Amino acid sequence: MTAPVTIPGGITAPRGWLAGGIAAGIKRSGRPDLAMVISDREATAAGVFTTNRVRAAPVILGSEAVRTRPDHMRGILVIAGTANAMTGAEGIADNRAVLAAAESEFGLPPGSLLPACTGVIGPRIPVDRVIRALPSLRSAIAIGPEGGEPAAHAIMTTDTRTKQAACRVRLRDGTVARIGGMAKGSGMIAPHLGPPHATALAFVTTDAQASPAGLARVLEKAAEDTFNMVTIDGDTSTNDTIYLLANGAAGGTPADDDPAFAAGVTAILESLARQVARDGEGATKLLTVHVEGAKSVADARAAARAVAGSTLVKAAVFGADPNVGRIACALGYSGARLDADRIDVALRRPRGSVPLIVHGRPARTVEDGGAIRVRDLLRQLDEVPLDIHLHEGRATATAWGCDLSYAYVQINAAYRT
Amino acid sequence: MTAPVTIPGGITAPRGWLAGGIAAGIKRSGRPDLAMVISDREATAAGVFTTNRVRAAPVILGSEAVRTRPDHMRGILVIAGTANAMTGAEGIADNRAVLAAAESEFGLPPGSLLPACTGVIGPRIPVDRVIRALPSLRSAIAIGPEGGEPAAHAIMTTDTRTKQAACRVRLRDGTVARIGGMAKGSGMIAPHLGPPHATALAFVTTDAQASPAGLARVLEKAAEDTFNMVTIDGDTSTNDTIYLLANGAAGGTPADDDPAFAAGVTAILESLARQVARDGEGATKLLTVHVEGAKSVADARAAARAVAGSTLVKAAVFGADPNVGRIACALGYSGARLDADRIDVALRRPRGSVPLIVHGRPARTVEDGGAIRVRDLLRQLDEVPLDIHLHEGRATATAWGCDLSYAYVQINAAYRT
Repeated sequence: MTAPVTIPGGITAPRGWLAGGIAAGIKRSGRPDLAMVISDREATAAGVFTTNRVRAAPVILGSEAVRTRPDHMRGILVIAGTANAMTGAEGIADNRAVLAAAESEFGLPPGSLLPACTGVIGPRIPVDRVIRALPSLRSAIAIGPEGGEPAAHAIMTTDTRTKQAACRVRLRDGTVARIGGMAKGSGMIAPHLGPPHATALAFVTTDAQASPAGLARVLEKAAEDTFNMVTIDGDTSTNDTIYLLANGAAGGTPADDDPAFAAGVTAILESLARQVARDGEGATKLLTVHVEGAKSVADARAAARAVAGSTLVKAAVFGADPNVGRIACALGYSGARLDADRIDVALRRPRGSVPLIVHGRPARTVEDGGAIRVRDLLRQLDEVPLDIHLHEGRATATAWGCDLSYAYVQINAAYRT
Repeated sequence: MTAPVTIPGGITAPRGWLAGGIAAGIKRSGRPDLAMVISDREATAAGVFTTNRVRAAPVILGSEAVRTRPDHMRGILVIAGTANAMTGAEGIADNRAVLAAAESEFGLPPGSLLPACTGVIGPRIPVDRVIRALPSLRSAIAIGPEGGEPAAHAIMTTDTRTKQAACRVRLRDGTVARIGGMAKGSGMIAPHLGPPHATALAFVTTDAQASPAGLARVLEKAAEDTFNMVTIDGDTSTNDTIYLLANGAAGGTPADDDPAFAAGVTAILESLARQVARDGEGATKLLTVHVEGAKSVADARAAARAVAGSTLVKAAVFGADPNVGRIACALGYSGARLDADRIDVALRRPRGSVPLIVHGRPARTVEDGGAIRVRDLLRQLDEVPLDIHLHEGRATATAWGCDLSYAYVQINAAYRT
């Protein structure tokens, strides 16, 4: 198997995929808030969704769609500015209405568009405004970055930048397929155990051919290793959704069980997950926590997530404070099996790591004089990569998070004002 | 059973209990950092401890003491400024050394003092400095508030105020017993499932008579309903400890299964738990979340804790923003069984509640014009009491937390500097 090769672009990098994004007046700010991803032919689809018991209308409708008609999909209609959650039966009807209007506007069969929403929980979709904007959305649809860029912009809420990734993979039968994706997510971001699940919004397209069941297997595994390992604030949203759609435009045989295809989807979701973590609300630094030597994968994941999600670790990273006790503390309450006296933690650097905890004790580097040098180093880094070894077994996992800054509090104390 | 009656004082309110607190030079700031609680006669003891797998030396020694010799205790030696965690075998030896020196200084039998530490994780106890300070500590020991107040001060770290409570109860046999307590805790505060456990440091004394097993039962149940329902930052400490000691100075028969005694201990721990939540690092408001109508007590607790612990709810409370979607979101991911369309949430006020969520939909009070009035109300409150009804069953629970402010980030970005 050859590794995935990064290529420019995002959601429209695969063949036969178009996209567009416009301002439909859903957001008060007037920013872009309506996006469409569309295939020039039928596509198969799979989705993973939030496990939050308060499920937004698009989550209810989207999970029903990928369960009942995963063979006949054409695209995704994304609304940013309102979550369409806590909107009851009216919210379901609203979302059905805008989907039906879009299918009609784009000349697509009924039920061929998947829904997604993100924004404030509570308000309903301004249905008339969305429907009035559909002709403009149709005009905005384009191939390549002219379509993908505006779409990636239009799905943002508190995000400060777009999140896109694309790669090409060589499948077993020699077919070269492309995989592209875009995501949004900055706050209300946390993993939630138990597949199928997802965090934030991420959409992945491919021109490979695959069955809905094959796509679902690939997506569930890839989401587990990527978006499920991102945590920004510990709050699992009502709207989390990842869709994976395959239109087969690259030809070839089904990629269902092709490791190269799975590796490509995982690479795209990992890139998007890192981009989401780096753009966490108020974040100044990306926090990458790699755990080795855990007794099981579940232990490795729990340990990595606990450290990346610890409020106190996040605040220390913001302050460039090598307060390593907080890392040990988070490992201790993570639930992972460990012996406190065997924990090793290091800050990964290109030319040799800096030890932070050695056999469960603070390293010399973080005591007194040494701490000043580590502090200076932490100040300069915009990515803080922690390597943790538990010496209990052979399982590994990586989690992504960000620091906790004043700006996080500011953004969330007055999100709606 | 008559309800507990609040009385002035704290840890020294019960008969035969003395205390003291001094500055021993453990904290660089020169603030008080060494406290002693001591009974004029033998006492029985029980303890609950953190479930963090990284356990501080005093947690290891204290849990061993209440397991092996709970009948022959005389008091507690508390060190503030260092957690004595991540200190390995040396940390155990250090703590044993200061306990032995204190027992010798106070003329107590070996093994009769319980240990507790709080502060930065990593550094060792400055053993010589502590031992040199013991004669001063002995001189400082006093009855009543002259002893209790300085002790409550000396156990503080990032706390901004002392936490004390005392009550008297009438036992079944007519004996009037007193129960008193003190606590510290402001950050690294979160519940952890699975008794026995505890959060922060809390010490409760009584002049009632009780067996160690009776004390343990009362303490475990009371801790479950009080300290286990406090969350400030989601980080479960390496040092959490609650001790309950009974010296029998009030006479009477054992209070082991006396509901009045259990009610008194619970009342003291609830008062201390509320004081800890109100003094959460950087907190400007106490957040009280009461859940009714849950399918089980576990569900009620999970729901109350999720809302009180949600980073996004906490930031919204700080900003006086009635962003009720975040409350519904937290309930949704809490794990509690619920129907999103039946959730009711109200802000409790002395003269009638203000509805926030009605049947799973945002109430009119928090939409558009109404939101301004709720916002003004939230700004004025220094306690935000939320009443949640799930309409799934009859179980209830209450959790305590606080808002998330800029000051929290400031305190924790530079705790050690």
